[in-house]
Amino acid sequence: MQLTLIGSGLIGGSAAWAMKKAGVVSRVHVYDVAADSARQACAMGAADAAFESIEEALEGADCIMSAVPVQAMSGVFAAVGRAAPERAWITDVGSTRCSVIAAARAALGERFSHYAPVHPIAGGEMPGVAYARPDLFAGARAISTPQEGMSPQAVEFWERAWSAVGAVVVRMSAREHDEVFASVSHLPHVLSYAMVDSILQAGKADKKLAFAGAGFRDFTRIAASSPRMWTDICLANRDCILEAMDAFEADLRHLRGLIESGDDAGLMEVFGRASRARRRLFAAGAAAGSFAPDQSRAK
Amino acid sequence: MQLTLIGSGLIGGSAAWAMKKAGVVSRVHVYDVAADSARQACAMGAADAAFESIEEALEGADCIMSAVPVQAMSGVFAAVGRAAPERAWITDVGSTRCSVIAAARAALGERFSHYAPVHPIAGGEMPGVAYARPDLFAGARAISTPQEGMSPQAVEFWERAWSAVGAVVVRMSAREHDEVFASVSHLPHVLSYAMVDSILQAGKADKKLAFAGAGFRDFTRIAASSPRMWTDICLANRDCILEAMDAFEADLRHLRGLIESGDDAGLMEVFGRASRARRRLFAAGAAAGSFAPDQSRAK
Repeated sequence: MQLTLIGSGLIGGSAAWAMKKAGVVSRVHVYDVAADSARQACAMGAADAAFESIEEALEGADCIMSAVPVQAMSGVFAAVGRAAPERAWITDVGSTRCSVIAAARAALGERFSHYAPVHPIAGGEMPGVAYARPDLFAGARAISTPQEGMSPQAVEFWERAWSAVGAVVVRMSAREHDEVFASVSHLPHVLSYAMVDSILQAGKADKKLAFAGAGFRDFTRIAASSPRMWTDICLANRDCILEAMDAFEADLRHLRGLIESGDDAGLMEVFGRASRARRRLFAAGAAAGSFAPDQSRAK
Repeated sequence: MQLTLIGSGLIGGSAAWAMKKAGVVSRVHVYDVAADSARQACAMGAADAAFESIEEALEGADCIMSAVPVQAMSGVFAAVGRAAPERAWITDVGSTRCSVIAAARAALGERFSHYAPVHPIAGGEMPGVAYARPDLFAGARAISTPQEGMSPQAVEFWERAWSAVGAVVVRMSAREHDEVFASVSHLPHVLSYAMVDSILQAGKADKKLAFAGAGFRDFTRIAASSPRMWTDICLANRDCILEAMDAFEADLRHLRGLIESGDDAGLMEVFGRASRARRRLFAAGAAAGSFAPDQSRAK
């Protein structure tokens, strides 16, 4: 079974490597617009052969994974529609669903029935194949978003492949996926970038950043992420991100008013509610998805 | 040398424990409004004797450390001014400086010359003495903010004590301290609380939080912090926090506009600038304070 990987970044490189180790595929052909990245994937053992063009890489593919930034997916799907063997199963690992599935539907034509996307919830501090690991997905959730027109065989093929590398596959609708991840992933990335940038734009940035401690380090870890990937996500999931941003800005305005007016009880209420939820969410030993809502809302 | 610790939380408990292990003090007397916490400090070895009243704990003190939430400092200083031996060196470990030093000046009277505050830049995911460690300050920065009226001997005593537990002591003015930490610590805490709370207040909170991954976990780690401590900090350092919030909100409004209008180049510029700064700031092996500004600003 030959996997053709388009885009050998952290996620694509790790996924191909993991699927090879798990025996899901026996050989990985790879293409990346940055030829160095594809060659590095081969040198690391994540892939077996790097190609200079997407068409060459697609030759002989039994299954195809697109792991490029989401705004570039549409170009990849067009090439797949043109050049891939008809039998091949097709997937992508993009972080947004509605716009990517629409792009696949438009570009893949009849091949759309062989397509089923799965978004693995994993990442690392640094982007790029240099940070790829075949165990990146052990215990991670992978979101499958089947839709009308995708064949059950395609959905099953990719869900099994992700299960084989240790991921826990969860199904939801594309719209629900985009709402959920706008809140718990996309907006936090925007805020983390904005926090770092607002310090850079104000005075004494060097002095301030020289005293950044562990809290700031963790809060801004995701601001080290790939600008290309997150620009694409912001554009592809614009509506859901703007909606999450509205909710956040309303909350921040409320907090600002409490700080300005010196409202001790009001601040204690918000901070107390948030800290209880956060502690419960990542309590030691809590299973993934075991979050239970807080019933006690201090007045 | 007897240290009297007022407030046996994570920082106070760790500091007393570390100073005992380093031989700076030989015996620790402790008082906490939560008597359980003081007893637990003794059981762990961080302190030697717990007292039911602040006056009893202060008896025989050679040096005194106040490690209570910053809004409670003033009450502690008043008790110290009333009941502490005149010879005792006095300090606090509060996260804000201007308002706490003003409270010390007002409450300590002539004893103010024996006072010198040092803010150690350290913390943990969870508050409370249960998480205290004697090595919490190894390699951490500790900010000394000497001011008119504090004797050089007092400043030297506490700076040496913090150096002895492995902290790197740095001097700056109280105002500069409050500006720096409003940007790199206080505002990130407010944003982290607001992020969690805005999800709780919007719909489908449980579903969304069930899919929170590593990025969200790190971004919101500081939202597990003590609501009492952070309410106090917001009230004590209000002006500097509101100023940092203004800068952040301007940056966020700019980003929102770029997302709304689909401005690829604009998003790439902001995300690129922020990610370069963040990667450089916490680059592997970078020494504390080695941050150098980014000269390349992509157009």
